[in-house]
Amino acid sequence: MNGAEVMVSTMVAAGMGPCFANPGTTELHLVAALDAVPGSRAVLGTFEGVCTGAADGYGRMADRPAWTLLHLGPGLANGAANLHNARRARTPLVSVVGDHATWHRIADAPLTTDLAGLAAPVSDQVIQTGTAGAVAKDLVKAASAAARGQVVTLLVPADHSWGPSEAAGLDTVPDVTLRRDRPGTETVEQAAAAVRAAQRPLLLLGGTGCRAGGLRAAAATGVELLVETFPARWERGGDLPAPGKLQYVRELAGDQLARHDLVLLAGARPPVSFFGYPGRPSALTAEHQQVRTLAGPDEDAAAALADLAAALAADGTGAGSAAERRHAAPRPQRPTGALDLTTLGAAVAALQPEGAIVVDESNTSGVAYTQAAAGAAPHTTLSLTGGAIGFGPPAATGAAVACPDRPVINLQADGSALYTLQALWTQAREGLDVTTVICANDSYRILRYELGRLGAQDGRAAIGLTDLGHPATDWVALAAGFGVPGRRAGTADELTEALAVALSEPGPHLVEARL
Amino acid sequence: MNGAEVMVSTMVAAGMGPCFANPGTTELHLVAALDAVPGSRAVLGTFEGVCTGAADGYGRMADRPAWTLLHLGPGLANGAANLHNARRARTPLVSVVGDHATWHRIADAPLTTDLAGLAAPVSDQVIQTGTAGAVAKDLVKAASAAARGQVVTLLVPADHSWGPSEAAGLDTVPDVTLRRDRPGTETVEQAAAAVRAAQRPLLLLGGTGCRAGGLRAAAATGVELLVETFPARWERGGDLPAPGKLQYVRELAGDQLARHDLVLLAGARPPVSFFGYPGRPSALTAEHQQVRTLAGPDEDAAAALADLAAALAADGTGAGSAAERRHAAPRPQRPTGALDLTTLGAAVAALQPEGAIVVDESNTSGVAYTQAAAGAAPHTTLSLTGGAIGFGPPAATGAAVACPDRPVINLQADGSALYTLQALWTQAREGLDVTTVICANDSYRILRYELGRLGAQDGRAAIGLTDLGHPATDWVALAAGFGVPGRRAGTADELTEALAVALSEPGPHLVEARL
Repeated sequence: MNGAEVMVSTMVAAGMGPCFANPGTTELHLVAALDAVPGSRAVLGTFEGVCTGAADGYGRMADRPAWTLLHLGPGLANGAANLHNARRARTPLVSVVGDHATWHRIADAPLTTDLAGLAAPVSDQVIQTGTAGAVAKDLVKAASAAARGQVVTLLVPADHSWGPSEAAGLDTVPDVTLRRDRPGTETVEQAAAAVRAAQRPLLLLGGTGCRAGGLRAAAATGVELLVETFPARWERGGDLPAPGKLQYVRELAGDQLARHDLVLLAGARPPVSFFGYPGRPSALTAEHQQVRTLAGPDEDAAAALADLAAALAADGTGAGSAAERRHAAPRPQRPTGALDLTTLGAAVAALQPEGAIVVDESNTSGVAYTQAAAGAAPHTTLSLTGGAIGFGPPAATGAAVACPDRPVINLQADGSALYTLQALWTQAREGLDVTTVICANDSYRILRYELGRLGAQDGRAAIGLTDLGHPATDWVALAAGFGVPGRRAGTADELTEALAVALSEPGPHLVEARL
Repeated sequence: MNGAEVMVSTMVAAGMGPCFANPGTTELHLVAALDAVPGSRAVLGTFEGVCTGAADGYGRMADRPAWTLLHLGPGLANGAANLHNARRARTPLVSVVGDHATWHRIADAPLTTDLAGLAAPVSDQVIQTGTAGAVAKDLVKAASAAARGQVVTLLVPADHSWGPSEAAGLDTVPDVTLRRDRPGTETVEQAAAAVRAAQRPLLLLGGTGCRAGGLRAAAATGVELLVETFPARWERGGDLPAPGKLQYVRELAGDQLARHDLVLLAGARPPVSFFGYPGRPSALTAEHQQVRTLAGPDEDAAAALADLAAALAADGTGAGSAAERRHAAPRPQRPTGALDLTTLGAAVAALQPEGAIVVDESNTSGVAYTQAAAGAAPHTTLSLTGGAIGFGPPAATGAAVACPDRPVINLQADGSALYTLQALWTQAREGLDVTTVICANDSYRILRYELGRLGAQDGRAAIGLTDLGHPATDWVALAAGFGVPGRRAGTADELTEALAVALSEPGPHLVEARL
């Protein structure tokens, strides 16, 4: 076998997910290996950001790493933004990047770049294969780290792909199912003591704290709950506890937190402002408020919450599992009339089928949806963890590959969709059941808001650099260009009708909701 | 003034080109400054690769730097591939990237990354502003380096934009017109001696050696000529000398060079294989062939060629300016019949107007065009210098901004166009006179060729990862989605008719040429 065949064999043996690929010449031995090794699967993205975002969506839903195959520095750079999001989401992911043959680097051919330098800022680890003979070991190292919730970039020079290799390490192929450590007893006891001592404690949930088990355990503690602003994966609807979400706008988030003397983090990071503003601190909490960690984002917050609930129940502080509080939310109603943010949110929430995966990159258009969907049928929401826009269409693609039996809805801001619209082609190619709802407000609305804070929203450049309406993007035409059937909705009724059609038919659809 | 206003004022005073922008919150004070400072211009790209590629196209045509405005690490990453191309082209370019406020970085908010680390691999220099007060100095340093043909990334934390500043250095605002050093007399004399001593010398032209003056001077030397494989800017047609081009395929290029005992580089780099292949060396020349530099890519090759021609004429070796050899090429004829690579190339070459700028990212589809266009009316060709695909549509956009009175033709491979198709929107927004000709072969043809070398082109993954025909992209629909009128051509006659219409009307057009 050559190095490429050993690598692909090892990945298949380890149970890794598919290869989301946009290869070039330096990766062709890996492409050939995908054909030589039974059980592998390759999915083509026509832009690397589609591949990395799809691997993120896959990893979040499958709880095991998919891998990407990217071409040299430019391919890695094109995929880097969605690797950044995946890293912030703690998604298990192995990003394989081909490099020039080791002896060819010194020639400084046109595509030569500092690959390790490019990869480091968007990776938890960068691993460079050492020799063709020992690639299996390098791959096992990468896959094992990924299974701890890391984004690992594996750089593979072409001669390590085509050179002779042996399946060293194949006897010890790791199980790559995602696993996170359960916080220790002492941590839980200290957290319980802090809760007992607090006047008004808050649990801020992230990571597995937003899974079904985490949410139920959190509710059983009796402590007030909030979910972090951008949860990687949030189970919602049905009879699940339905906590609110920490707001994006710094002032609103500060208000939500201000009432609490203790913010206990369960899978979430300490709450900070998304951006720095003149004269405002980074932290969203004041000095007199205590911020304490029950479980870090890398740890199993759900298990920690169960332990915390048990500790609090033992002395009667918590609500106890019998008294688990259900934050019952009303079932969303199908809206009629004008299409605005409220009716948009209600329409999607009312029509989304049970078991739906909602990839939410709606940005400013999604506030009403998040509230309305609390009462929907059980579903899963994935959100933009790293702020690198262009996450939604690729992540929806990968989620659909991971869960072919679940409908996927991509609730998607228009400006962000323009970054990675090529994902629609992959959805058509693979026949994926994704319904993209474009929130077409023809602007970078969030920047209009931020410019308003500066009092600078009316200038020619300020308008010109935030207006997407001249010309307005015709999303139905773009979808058609990629082989995806589309419809335009100008009213709530048209939207619910278009959604009903899209959700009842297999394969991808797009609905342009004109706001 | 605040730092942002000082920076924009300095750029306007220095005569820098427009700002190709896709800003976010951390760049909004710079957006406000674009409104506050008279004489600035901002052009919106809806994906950062459009901004950086446009700045590359602008810089190549204007011979002075434009600037880009990108949002934090993900924005930089999305623009990095085309910065890589610009760096390989020695394009003057200042890439401004906003960063979090200095004191906010430690909060590790979601969009925080190692910006300097990301920028270094695609920049000749990375400059970090030191304080709000002294941004003018940092900007002058960046602009001065750019004017030497460098890609300079300038990282600007938000507090350096909003903080109070003074126009320090405004008295010494540099002229940012691109300038390259003329090689010294000794270098020229040594090159002349090498030519005299050689049996069959070759001049390999790049940089300004491919401008009109460089080509005429090169012809006047009497030495055989080749143009490097991917010239950044190549003046062609009319009565200009029409040397051939060094081939991309390593075996063909090796054959072209093998007949020469001396390869004298005039603005070109030493010829190396684009990729490394098993058992083949990187260099395209053998050890017994002498490779010598008359002018490096950073130097003024045209001036060096004029000096070389004079030195050779003085002792009668060269052809002398009176005997300047015109490699007369036949005027391309309007083709009819089936549409294939030959008639595609002939059609574009026959119809391109005098003064056209042809941005050529046709890859495997362009060989016939390059030959046919030698006899076309005078025009300028820009090509893919760094191998990072997705260069064409953005570069065509920037070239059209730089030269509003010249028609721009983007001869464009379909697979590459999918990387940065968002440029069509900017062309529509700005009403730019760009005609995009999509070479629609529905495949990554170059990879099919390279897989063929491996004998691995027939597997499921090999086909699946190179086939773009299932579904076929409907480029007319995509163009319509971005507000660009499009037509489809299935024969040579339909193509010439569609081109004639597109070239006779102002504003952007797209023609999908089905191959």
